[in-house]
Amino acid sequence: MLAGGTGGAKLAHGFQHVVGAGELTVIANVADDLELFGLHVSPDLDSVLYTLAGIVGESGWGVRGDTWTALEMLGRLGEPTWFRIGDADLATHVRRSRLLREGSTLTDVSRALAGSLGVTTQVVPATDDPVRTVVSTDAGELDFQTYFVARAQRDEVRGVRFAGIEQARPSPAAIAAIAEADLIVIAPSNPIVSVAPILGIRGMREGVQGAAAACVAVSPIIGGHALKGPADRMLASLGHEVSALGVARLYAGIVDRFVLDEQDAELAPAIAALGMAVDVLPTVMSTEEDRAELARRIISAADAMLGR
Amino acid sequence: MLAGGTGGAKLAHGFQHVVGAGELTVIANVADDLELFGLHVSPDLDSVLYTLAGIVGESGWGVRGDTWTALEMLGRLGEPTWFRIGDADLATHVRRSRLLREGSTLTDVSRALAGSLGVTTQVVPATDDPVRTVVSTDAGELDFQTYFVARAQRDEVRGVRFAGIEQARPSPAAIAAIAEADLIVIAPSNPIVSVAPILGIRGMREGVQGAAAACVAVSPIIGGHALKGPADRMLASLGHEVSALGVARLYAGIVDRFVLDEQDAELAPAIAALGMAVDVLPTVMSTEEDRAELARRIISAADAMLGR
Repeated sequence: MLAGGTGGAKLAHGFQHVVGAGELTVIANVADDLELFGLHVSPDLDSVLYTLAGIVGESGWGVRGDTWTALEMLGRLGEPTWFRIGDADLATHVRRSRLLREGSTLTDVSRALAGSLGVTTQVVPATDDPVRTVVSTDAGELDFQTYFVARAQRDEVRGVRFAGIEQARPSPAAIAAIAEADLIVIAPSNPIVSVAPILGIRGMREGVQGAAAACVAVSPIIGGHALKGPADRMLASLGHEVSALGVARLYAGIVDRFVLDEQDAELAPAIAALGMAVDVLPTVMSTEEDRAELARRIISAADAMLGR
Repeated sequence: MLAGGTGGAKLAHGFQHVVGAGELTVIANVADDLELFGLHVSPDLDSVLYTLAGIVGESGWGVRGDTWTALEMLGRLGEPTWFRIGDADLATHVRRSRLLREGSTLTDVSRALAGSLGVTTQVVPATDDPVRTVVSTDAGELDFQTYFVARAQRDEVRGVRFAGIEQARPSPAAIAAIAEADLIVIAPSNPIVSVAPILGIRGMREGVQGAAAACVAVSPIIGGHALKGPADRMLASLGHEVSALGVARLYAGIVDRFVLDEQDAELAPAIAALGMAVDVLPTVMSTEEDRAELARRIISAADAMLGR
């Protein structure tokens, strides 16, 4: 599964529930990583890890029931506090930063964190190299978290680029997982800032296109809106249709199959015309059982296509 | 004031209460600093800072009312947890480590931390260079915190050395403070592992001896015991007398004046015979008023000696 943060994490959790231990690999976006307090913070990797470990906070990020003592002190000592890092979450960043400084790759670190948290799913960064989303707005170019958190997505997005993406090499574990996969799933994550900076890494799109497995994308837009985050407004301001069809167009030539929500059933023919098989499914994941059920149905549909 | 951790911090707090804002400089031991989770931890500097800021924990270290969420998570992620770092305390180490990594000296960092915590006293490390206490025991050479915390001071101390002390340069702020001082105080800290690694830094002993100001030491041994820490057992196993007299002998040739507790009044003549003026005072600092009163009486005695 190629995934960003919360939406991707939920569907990954559903798949983890349905497939055997160790059979799922989540390739997470790292283009919204940031350096805070001199520590390396990987919001998407952590949302996925915490969700798969069953300890994610209610909003889909951070650790459930976390305390905020360190952040208060960091603020008192002059560090920025707009990015809300709880105490347990800070521990993850401290641990990650120590391992990175000692020479581990982000892939190594993610493997170590998953192991410590009892997560049997492989969680790997799309790349071990620095790739950073830069958002063009009327207020100038902003790094992703400044746009997303500090300025609360209030700026109209005029363009998006991924600094460093030309130089970045894909994580070998990600490439291997794609090559060996029985099914490739593009999670219902933001296509512009979560999925594009994964597929845009050298060899990644070609890996997906050349893989033996079918590739299925799940629409993050339901009824013209993103359930969470700015995907809908981003699509609009960048000139895309704000619908499952608009998302499907972005994935044309990459995915074999497209899953859209029952609310959007009328878009199925137009999506099919892009050359994709279409599955109309209940995709809103309100409960843990919803996640597992969506995973089961995605697998069934793909298996049927492959005649299994 | 030359100081180690808790005892030194208490007397420094008393002096801070008595003298004008900015008139006190505390030169803190850094030989028990350690690297934990990839962060630079300075236990003595922090005990002094937290005490002077009025936020120290009840045991004389860490932050009062701190939480332990990060440490629990760090343990889960495979980091050692024998050195108890609370969440607010962790924030200090994160901030310090970031500034050090960006090129600040430990002196710069200590100044920044003091400023953020509203501490007007100058708190400076004895040196910006790495000096580390190594304790020889029957279990081999141990770094100080392994001996002190991890092994709970259970090993007999056969010898003490300070790795790096020959190469270390004194913090310029420390040397300047000694040269400009009206009074130099050696705090009631462990003479072997807190004061010796300050005085042993090149130029520091000579600075104290050559200073215009009188130098007064306060005995950390009262009635044959250290109020806190292993100073008494260390003195014994290294062949020193475990008494204020034993401590005074270590400071002969450096201090002009020696403060011992009323309980030890009978040692005054023997200490005077070492060539020091002797003040017999109540030195147990149970309350904040005790700290201030001891500071006042040390200043009065020194002023009387100088005819002020």
